[in-house]
Amino acid sequence: MKQSLNFVTIGVANLEKAKNFYIDKFGWKPFKDDDGIVFFQLNGFIFALFPEDELADDIGIVNDGSGFRRMTFAINCRSEEEVNQMFSELEKNGVKIVKPPAKVFWGGYSGYIADAEDNYWEIAFNPFLKL
Amino acid sequence: MKQSLNFVTIGVANLEKAKNFYIDKFGWKPFKDDDGIVFFQLNGFIFALFPEDELADDIGIVNDGSGFRRMTFAINCRSEEEVNQMFSELEKNGVKIVKPPAKVFWGGYSGYIADAEDNYWEIAFNPFLKL
Repeated sequence: MKQSLNFVTIGVANLEKAKNFYIDKFGWKPFKDDDGIVFFQLNGFIFALFPEDELADDIGIVNDGSGFRRMTFAINCRSEEEVNQMFSELEKNGVKIVKPPAKVFWGGYSGYIADAEDNYWEIAFNPFLKL
Repeated sequence: MKQSLNFVTIGVANLEKAKNFYIDKFGWKPFKDDDGIVFFQLNGFIFALFPEDELADDIGIVNDGSGFRRMTFAINCRSEEEVNQMFSELEKNGVKIVKPPAKVFWGGYSGYIADAEDNYWEIAFNPFLKL
């Protein structure tokens, strides 16, 4: 696998306040700020803010304050087939599949795996996002 | 402030296991793996693994499982003066200073600020790291 990722997503309690910190204090400009998600283009990847309960829902876990770090990483693929292929290789390697890839509500195709300490990596195809 | 960062650091419970996941399952190669810290060069930034209690100590907070996400972001500056300047601007903007910049054990100069939801950003000068 390439040593790269496409998204670092922070699950936030209050999207408006969390977003305004980066806009007002850091002087950053989001390139997407609608549909309840905020994207900042950083150096080679997207820094995203998303409500933490929705982020947990997306993974299919409970956000009960115990283990979940309220953040995820994502790797974007160029097609659904590439997502499937990456999942099947990772599964062969004994990686824990948290959510097998499937069509998702926002129009893409994605699933989640967990690292050795349950940090969640989404592997996704997003037809709306140019890589 | 530039829309960029230099480090995403995950605080881990077991550094060996956490590291081996990325080496064995993702096929990634660390470029630094000594002194109890592991660095992977990703696309434009460094993905670091560091024991979570040491990460909390470095910030000056307690890792009691309540609020701390066990992860930090870092922005690297080109000099101690640039670190001081960034802190004074952020302070003027009302940003919460968690740890004022100071010389640190690894030979650099750094401090921490918190965003609106206590996500920690280190602002550092590292004389050993080429930006």
